[in-house]
Amino acid sequence: MPYFDAASSLPLHPVARQALLAAYEDGWADPARPHREGRRARLLLDAARESAAEAVGCRPDELTFTSSGTRALHAGIAGALAGRARAGRHLLVSAVEHSAVLHAAEAHREAGGTAAEIGVDSGGRVAPDAVAEALREAPGPTALACVQSANHEVGTRQPIGEIAEVCREAGVPLLVDAAQSLAWEPVAGGWSLLAGSAHKWGGPAGVGLLVVRKGTRFAPRPPTDERESGRAPGFENIPAVVAAAAALWEVRAEAAAEAERLRGLVDVIRARVPELVPDVEVVGDARHRLPHVVTFSCLYADGEALLHALDREGFAVSSGSSCTSSTLTPSHVLRAMGVLSEGNVRVSLPPGTAEEDVERFLAVLPGAVASVRERLAAPGPAADGERQDQDLTVDSLGTLCPVPVIELAKAIGRVRLGGVVTVLADDEAASLDIPAWCAMRGQEYVGASGEAGGGTAYRVRRVR
Amino acid sequence: MPYFDAASSLPLHPVARQALLAAYEDGWADPARPHREGRRARLLLDAARESAAEAVGCRPDELTFTSSGTRALHAGIAGALAGRARAGRHLLVSAVEHSAVLHAAEAHREAGGTAAEIGVDSGGRVAPDAVAEALREAPGPTALACVQSANHEVGTRQPIGEIAEVCREAGVPLLVDAAQSLAWEPVAGGWSLLAGSAHKWGGPAGVGLLVVRKGTRFAPRPPTDERESGRAPGFENIPAVVAAAAALWEVRAEAAAEAERLRGLVDVIRARVPELVPDVEVVGDARHRLPHVVTFSCLYADGEALLHALDREGFAVSSGSSCTSSTLTPSHVLRAMGVLSEGNVRVSLPPGTAEEDVERFLAVLPGAVASVRERLAAPGPAADGERQDQDLTVDSLGTLCPVPVIELAKAIGRVRLGGVVTVLADDEAASLDIPAWCAMRGQEYVGASGEAGGGTAYRVRRVR
Repeated sequence: MPYFDAASSLPLHPVARQALLAAYEDGWADPARPHREGRRARLLLDAARESAAEAVGCRPDELTFTSSGTRALHAGIAGALAGRARAGRHLLVSAVEHSAVLHAAEAHREAGGTAAEIGVDSGGRVAPDAVAEALREAPGPTALACVQSANHEVGTRQPIGEIAEVCREAGVPLLVDAAQSLAWEPVAGGWSLLAGSAHKWGGPAGVGLLVVRKGTRFAPRPPTDERESGRAPGFENIPAVVAAAAALWEVRAEAAAEAERLRGLVDVIRARVPELVPDVEVVGDARHRLPHVVTFSCLYADGEALLHALDREGFAVSSGSSCTSSTLTPSHVLRAMGVLSEGNVRVSLPPGTAEEDVERFLAVLPGAVASVRERLAAPGPAADGERQDQDLTVDSLGTLCPVPVIELAKAIGRVRLGGVVTVLADDEAASLDIPAWCAMRGQEYVGASGEAGGGTAYRVRRVR
Repeated sequence: MPYFDAASSLPLHPVARQALLAAYEDGWADPARPHREGRRARLLLDAARESAAEAVGCRPDELTFTSSGTRALHAGIAGALAGRARAGRHLLVSAVEHSAVLHAAEAHREAGGTAAEIGVDSGGRVAPDAVAEALREAPGPTALACVQSANHEVGTRQPIGEIAEVCREAGVPLLVDAAQSLAWEPVAGGWSLLAGSAHKWGGPAGVGLLVVRKGTRFAPRPPTDERESGRAPGFENIPAVVAAAAALWEVRAEAAAEAERLRGLVDVIRARVPELVPDVEVVGDARHRLPHVVTFSCLYADGEALLHALDREGFAVSSGSSCTSSTLTPSHVLRAMGVLSEGNVRVSLPPGTAEEDVERFLAVLPGAVASVRERLAAPGPAADGERQDQDLTVDSLGTLCPVPVIELAKAIGRVRLGGVVTVLADDEAASLDIPAWCAMRGQEYVGASGEAGGGTAYRVRRVR
């Protein structure tokens, strides 16, 4: 049963499993105790730290093990902000960061600080110039900037080396969320802080890492204790830490060859999905991307239904569509990129993915998409109804993605060239998907305006 | 090699190991994902929560898994304080709480709140009346009270049922740190919040639990996310959680019988140590105590040296002496009890401890203590030097525990009955150990006063 959701979590690597079991024999005691069992645990912890630090490219005393990647980000951002509180209270984050970073930014705002997001291009990439501009336009001195090494939803890699240089020139520390890329290689460039998450590389859950480069001002958020240099309170999870370090070395040994192989499989998906499925947009930067991630959105499809259809065919994938989220808002990543969010599918291949499985995925995908569209009565590729000379207004209030776009597509064939369809909708995804539909269909997106009823009126002119 | 430091950490229970391995097969995926792997992980997480809740005695939706007991305490205290911020800003904690609670209280003070400690008797027990008094004497409305179910250093159990009743009458929620007692039984009484730690009952490290009773005001400290009811951000550690729940059930099944057996062994230690070793004080409440913990302090001995001596004999124990701590202050628990801290040894027996091992411990202990005392040139039981009629001043500035007490013991024999020995010392432990020595020796502790040189002058009158 192929699992294509590697970017969410990977099964435990066999080497990690072995290391874990061994470390449960020798590493269960409190490493702060001076007795034999405590000293043995301490030795294992020290060795894991050295090994992880070498793989990350830092000094062992710069690396702290945390209980998750999220904790590493929360602790790293809070500690860097507090350490630089005298220098400034402004936080810059890219608009496509992991939600853990956005939540930390929100917490900073609630605590009286300021935070701003750096926009991305339609491929999801942060331009170094955009960082420089955001630093210039900050309302006050910037305490910290956060940019991920690669995006978790669309696989776009960020130019960390150049961004770090921009930050260095401005005297602002850069925190890099490297959760998605650390399995493949260290993060190059002059960053100041870095976070990672072991279950993304085949290590166990319960292990994150936070690196704080020497010379970076850092004041851990209280309450603290004496463990992990005061940066991660609570009893150390040594068996898991040992397993995480072992898995990182193991995946790194195969990383170059496996990256090339997976990149080939992803290239096949990127090329063939638009041939096999009508009305599809492949999203994310075509050149600067992770080897194993490909994301596409399908017009007139419901992401959650699509996920379930693929699951029934035996394929586990992920989606950034609003319909899969409890908040009913589309992925902030797709929103920041301004691309289609409906029928969104993220395929992230685990190491070792077989070519046959990818072929089989491509074989079942068209049927899965068609079945979902059929249930929603989506318009066919050449939908054109009874034409009329009047402009049209479509009331989609109360309906959810992808219905407003389906209604728009049905209506457009019914107005004359130059005529306008107005779609009334209150689903948040429409603000992203109606302009995206216009771009894909070559129709003119006129604009949106708030309506008295609480919804939004989206205006589209038929130009072809 | 007998490991007598169960209160620090226990090895992974074989049942936990089995559960862990099984859960790594089925529980590695993201439980928030709707695909098969995600649903399987979710099922395991839900089952673990139900099982742990039943063992704790709460509803499953009241129980959150955290990444450690420390995290559970930090999150529980911060969340309860924030939830009651309008009611009040005062925090009450017993003086013998785990350092994680004291650190959280310190963080609360730094954030502008107030906190006070509730004292204990010489057995380390918190009187319900003392809680009532602390509530009455609070500088403002009390937002939260924290009292442990049993002490981690001396094993004293607290009267949680009565304390909870006092809190209930005052309308103040009670948080119980149950880390040391949860292996033995649920915590009875009307508490509002409870914290536990899995590696204390044979579960894996990396799992704590936080229970927040329905109806308790609680506002999780930001940043938060959607995991674990918003109370513990970051990817869930499902395999460890499953193993923790399995281990708790397993140890509970044996708890009553094993408690009785270990209590018998501890009774032997409590009775025989004072017979075998001169100048020993067994500390902690003699009646209300955990079945597996016994703590004693040895006059004229250095706790760390004693630990090492016992370690060489194959026994892993713990110590609350200042000499084993990086901060050079004696255990705050022993200080709150006002008992001797020098040469402190905590024996905490893991389930399954063999009687022979306890006998062997009792056989090697006298030699270990004697060897440490010998190296320190401690006075013999009947030390009495050349007597003089003058009062004496002993300069122990710059020396560490147990040297000031050794110097006092040597000097006391040299003054006449009614004469005074003044000890100048700057080691913090002296403030605890000199009065304790007086009580043990039947000499009169006159008092202490600050000295110009930065140390303290302790005055002791010879009365026998």
